[in-house]
Amino acid sequence: MSLPEPARRDTRLDPYIDAYAERTHGLTVSAVRALFAVANRPEVVSLAGGMPNIADLPREALAAAFDRLITERGTQAMQYGSGQGEPFMRDKIVEVMAEEQIQAHADDIVVTCGSQQALDLVTRVFCDPGDVVLAEAPSYVGALGTFRAYQCEIVHVAMDEHGIEPEALRNALVTLKAAGKRVKFLYTIPNFQNPTGVTQTLERRHAIIAIAKEHGLLIVEDNPYGLLTLEAEPMPALRSMDADNVVYLGSFSKIFAPGFRVGWVLAPHAVREKLVLTQEAATLCPPVFSQYAIATYLDQFDWRAQIDVFRDMYRERRDAMLAGLSDHMLEGTTWTRPKGGFFVWVNLPEGLDSQAMLPRAVTARVAFTPGTAFYADGLGSRNMRLSFCFPPPDRIYEGTRRLGEVLKQELEMYRTFGLGAASPRHLDQSIGPAPDIS
Amino acid sequence: MSLPEPARRDTRLDPYIDAYAERTHGLTVSAVRALFAVANRPEVVSLAGGMPNIADLPREALAAAFDRLITERGTQAMQYGSGQGEPFMRDKIVEVMAEEQIQAHADDIVVTCGSQQALDLVTRVFCDPGDVVLAEAPSYVGALGTFRAYQCEIVHVAMDEHGIEPEALRNALVTLKAAGKRVKFLYTIPNFQNPTGVTQTLERRHAIIAIAKEHGLLIVEDNPYGLLTLEAEPMPALRSMDADNVVYLGSFSKIFAPGFRVGWVLAPHAVREKLVLTQEAATLCPPVFSQYAIATYLDQFDWRAQIDVFRDMYRERRDAMLAGLSDHMLEGTTWTRPKGGFFVWVNLPEGLDSQAMLPRAVTARVAFTPGTAFYADGLGSRNMRLSFCFPPPDRIYEGTRRLGEVLKQELEMYRTFGLGAASPRHLDQSIGPAPDIS
Repeated sequence: MSLPEPARRDTRLDPYIDAYAERTHGLTVSAVRALFAVANRPEVVSLAGGMPNIADLPREALAAAFDRLITERGTQAMQYGSGQGEPFMRDKIVEVMAEEQIQAHADDIVVTCGSQQALDLVTRVFCDPGDVVLAEAPSYVGALGTFRAYQCEIVHVAMDEHGIEPEALRNALVTLKAAGKRVKFLYTIPNFQNPTGVTQTLERRHAIIAIAKEHGLLIVEDNPYGLLTLEAEPMPALRSMDADNVVYLGSFSKIFAPGFRVGWVLAPHAVREKLVLTQEAATLCPPVFSQYAIATYLDQFDWRAQIDVFRDMYRERRDAMLAGLSDHMLEGTTWTRPKGGFFVWVNLPEGLDSQAMLPRAVTARVAFTPGTAFYADGLGSRNMRLSFCFPPPDRIYEGTRRLGEVLKQELEMYRTFGLGAASPRHLDQSIGPAPDIS
Repeated sequence: MSLPEPARRDTRLDPYIDAYAERTHGLTVSAVRALFAVANRPEVVSLAGGMPNIADLPREALAAAFDRLITERGTQAMQYGSGQGEPFMRDKIVEVMAEEQIQAHADDIVVTCGSQQALDLVTRVFCDPGDVVLAEAPSYVGALGTFRAYQCEIVHVAMDEHGIEPEALRNALVTLKAAGKRVKFLYTIPNFQNPTGVTQTLERRHAIIAIAKEHGLLIVEDNPYGLLTLEAEPMPALRSMDADNVVYLGSFSKIFAPGFRVGWVLAPHAVREKLVLTQEAATLCPPVFSQYAIATYLDQFDWRAQIDVFRDMYRERRDAMLAGLSDHMLEGTTWTRPKGGFFVWVNLPEGLDSQAMLPRAVTARVAFTPGTAFYADGLGSRNMRLSFCFPPPDRIYEGTRRLGEVLKQELEMYRTFGLGAASPRHLDQSIGPAPDIS
């Protein structure tokens, strides 16, 4: 298989180059993206994407329910709607959040075009260029992209297998304050974090909330995977412990289907008002038909039982990945053992560079996301994110086998020629969220 | 009927007041909004909204087509999609634009969450705070809101019944350049403009393109109503005359249905690339199911014949409005006679103030949008926008009768007590796009 040339465009050919906004400079198509295009070929096992597997949804029953929806309420469902989101949709979202012990009022919810837009609107409401956003080290590539798009400075806070380290958070706040920086919020994914799969313990949640309160720090809690627990019951959300100081982001993409693009923000009342006005300037209103469709699903189907079906399906896939890693990884490689969600985070032995090896991995018909994508500061070269959400279990297992082979060859090259001898390492920060869904 | 108190919130009660971004200050709920909530009561004839009338869509046939779509292709239609928009959707958009003589390639199209998001993304790509955007005087309230959200300076360019005045455009460019301002683009709605209903003549189109080329000015052409011609054939789009220098915004909201939230940008290639990356940071991808639904509609239905049905329906409504205005308006009142679209623009006699009279009009069971909403500079107090898109013809006629009564009383008050005697005029710039769709 031949690999494409890096797709980086020569911006000298762009006649609009002097007309763009400051925030637009540096927006370029990354070389990694071109690789992902190749990784989508059927012969490649892609452990790179974050696409949920929705094959188990009851398509025929859904088709019939939506048929009735259009026949009976089509004139409303296909019309403009509320900038805040439809009231019946927000009532249903209150029910969904109650599964994670959140007590909320529908009036404090703003429906968004997927939870990516929730992230975008929250950043837009709070962040001026140069403002600091704190994020776990590592964090979701799509969030880092949004923070960059608003010209924020991203400061990572260390985490371990229990989540964000409280002392690291406290130290960051003290140091940044001393440096005169404006810290706007802490962005955190407490459950089955993307990319590490780590879940914050209850103790850590309390500690983080206490530190945030002490320092007047707003918490933005992103929780797309919280209900996809594979072992225990869902943990209480940060928002359930502190209603005043947490902006909560939710999504139907993983518990139902992403193609409708419906997510939401639950925010303190004053913030909610700004978000609605911002949503109106951004889209007039979030997708209306999608809201009718999802509310119909939540009304007429046993959505909790469907989540159980998803849990069983993802558990089998996670187990296939953990078994494959156990059987095929090199000595010196370690990885997380997630209790839910989609992702395993791998630490490679010294001398290996995940981004440099990606082209050779794709040639060996396996793809992953290099760890550097999840850091704003260039770290992550000895990490990779593996997703167990999309390929079937036997393919996942085979993918880890191929990956094991690639790692073995890489390590041999390193031992023979030294670091970076086989291929120079191109540090590429411009990877956007797209590979995350492909 | 009692009217609500203005909904302006006391921001001193907002604990987050110091945390917001610069762009968020000044985002407040306007008093006009509260009035519009009252205007939505069934006894009020609302000539204020911009909602299309979609009752004529073939709902049962659509329901059946979408039923098959979900049964047969649901796994793709409900999954994540491309940040640029689905290829089959972009192919269909090329066909739609060909109706207005645009020759385009699907690769240069970016699908958006309604054309409001197209406007948002284009502004985000080009505009830093303080940059100037030129817009017709008056212009679409939702566009002004977006430009303000990106902290642009909006400079209006005079228009007459033939569209933008070329000399006014040239003078604005020269003056702004001399003042050291960065002008990022001209925002224009050439067909059945919102709010005036005016259509740029072919001669004006050529003149505007020539001036733009001469001054290196980008044109953003917003064309949601272009195919809703009520008299002649659609005019050639500006984009059809200059592919290099025009960013074109389109929408399915008025030729099909707004609830799917699908619009698009057609942009020169380099700009298109920035827009895709920006779209990914904003939403990951535009609504996928909506794109499948609309492409299904365009594939399986005679959408051109449906536009003819819409044209006949809107023509009858426009004629009812023009007849009503002719029968009921005060002497000294003038108005535009649109050849398509949704809107008539009214100039009131001296002494009348459209925003000040709105509460009394709503009490008299008729609503309109005050002209001030469509100006960034406080003008428009002697104007109102009347929409003929949503109420049935007899209600539209009755609405103009009620409006005539209100104007008569207002003029009597003015003649008796002088300007502003009956109620002080609250200049309210914060009106957002929401009333436009309600």
